[in-house]
Amino acid sequence: MMIIKIGGGSAINLQGIVEDLAQIDGPKIIVHGANALRDELAQKLGMAPRVITSASGYASVYSDANALDVMMMAYAGLRNKRLVELFQRQQINAIGLTGLDGLLIRGRRNRGIRVKENGKIKLLRDFSGKPQTVNKTLLILLLEQGYLPVITVPIADENGFAINSENDDIVALLQSALQATTIVQLIEAPGFLENPTDPDSVISRLTIRELRVREQQSAGRIKRKLHALVKIFESGKPRVIIADGRVEHPVKNALNEKGTVIQ
Amino acid sequence: MMIIKIGGGSAINLQGIVEDLAQIDGPKIIVHGANALRDELAQKLGMAPRVITSASGYASVYSDANALDVMMMAYAGLRNKRLVELFQRQQINAIGLTGLDGLLIRGRRNRGIRVKENGKIKLLRDFSGKPQTVNKTLLILLLEQGYLPVITVPIADENGFAINSENDDIVALLQSALQATTIVQLIEAPGFLENPTDPDSVISRLTIRELRVREQQSAGRIKRKLHALVKIFESGKPRVIIADGRVEHPVKNALNEKGTVIQ
Repeated sequence: MMIIKIGGGSAINLQGIVEDLAQIDGPKIIVHGANALRDELAQKLGMAPRVITSASGYASVYSDANALDVMMMAYAGLRNKRLVELFQRQQINAIGLTGLDGLLIRGRRNRGIRVKENGKIKLLRDFSGKPQTVNKTLLILLLEQGYLPVITVPIADENGFAINSENDDIVALLQSALQATTIVQLIEAPGFLENPTDPDSVISRLTIRELRVREQQSAGRIKRKLHALVKIFESGKPRVIIADGRVEHPVKNALNEKGTVIQ
Repeated sequence: MMIIKIGGGSAINLQGIVEDLAQIDGPKIIVHGANALRDELAQKLGMAPRVITSASGYASVYSDANALDVMMMAYAGLRNKRLVELFQRQQINAIGLTGLDGLLIRGRRNRGIRVKENGKIKLLRDFSGKPQTVNKTLLILLLEQGYLPVITVPIADENGFAINSENDDIVALLQSALQATTIVQLIEAPGFLENPTDPDSVISRLTIRELRVREQQSAGRIKRKLHALVKIFESGKPRVIIADGRVEHPVKNALNEKGTVIQ
């Protein structure tokens, strides 16, 4: 079993990824983003993301109903279906699903962010949360029938509402259910960089121990990402490869361990 | 087995439809449109549909790649996922699928429209076509597991490309595969109208014979719609009810035969 996470950047070579995967046997699951597409669409529609600052000073994106609408159009609509189409053109029988579909991925909606408004503390609750459970029966059923699940947000909350979630957490959750042997993460960089502004600073090997140390030393978004990576290793003994999604053969390149290998 | 076709008009009461269906047992399949949503989105994005006139004088919408993008966002993205969400909130385990997903619905791409350009006849080919086959194995598998398939365009062509298609034809094709006993079509009118501008002119009963006569006497879009209705009766002996999707209880209302019943 292989899980391939495809980043949502605009420079990701989707065609190359699909062509590579057409030549690799065995069961696979795709998890994809579409953030560049979503931002572009939101801008065109004049629906810029609303950023709120918590009482404790942290800034975060507020996923209101409008933001979810745009997400559904970009992730579940355009990107998911165009990706499924690319696979179908390569004779791979892909099936695109969000976490809502068949309650494939269910999560817990965030309780709210404490914000200060006119001097008063208020709880602002949006449509976002953490994935908690996978409909493993449905996934296994589809895999056994030879389908390639192509998964994206939204996921479902406790009450069936659509909520936004991090793909990193979805991948970690899928790993807990399926124990993949290989997890490939295709991003807009040649791997995990020691210095984010220097593409030549790729860390080629990382142990889980080193990963944990880095997690403790980091903060914010990077810390969350590292935490999701650490969680992957709680299930099975996968090989995780973070590699460049922009090259001619992104998956082959990754499987040749050009990028960052964590083991 | 019941097939419910939900029209894509802006006044359709989706919440009422979902609440009604939550109280009706038995296997069902949903086929839905989203034309009002698509038109609104296309307008906001400045991507108005391109209408072309054939050499023989017929006007039709040209589904280019941009039109398909907008369709994917409106149908497969926003409408499909919000509808699945409404079902999930009523504890109905819906699973949203386009014809591309698992090659659920495969069709034949139109060969092209002959247009005159600078005095020369040219063949203009777009991304549209007629549905031809259903992945019945996948549908049955999902129905047997208790899922509610919520189906929409695009469908897949012979080569795996996404193409636009008429929901009327998709319903007729599903009927040929599944032999539903009841087919409900929810539209923005109280039924099939004798006079399209007079909502009081609902035809309450129609025989298949009368339907065929009307098909022969009509033209254009209405003829295509009637032809798809006639085709429904080639498989099984369903009761087809065309009813108002805008009322408080659209499905209950339809099953009480308030609308047009064809048998």
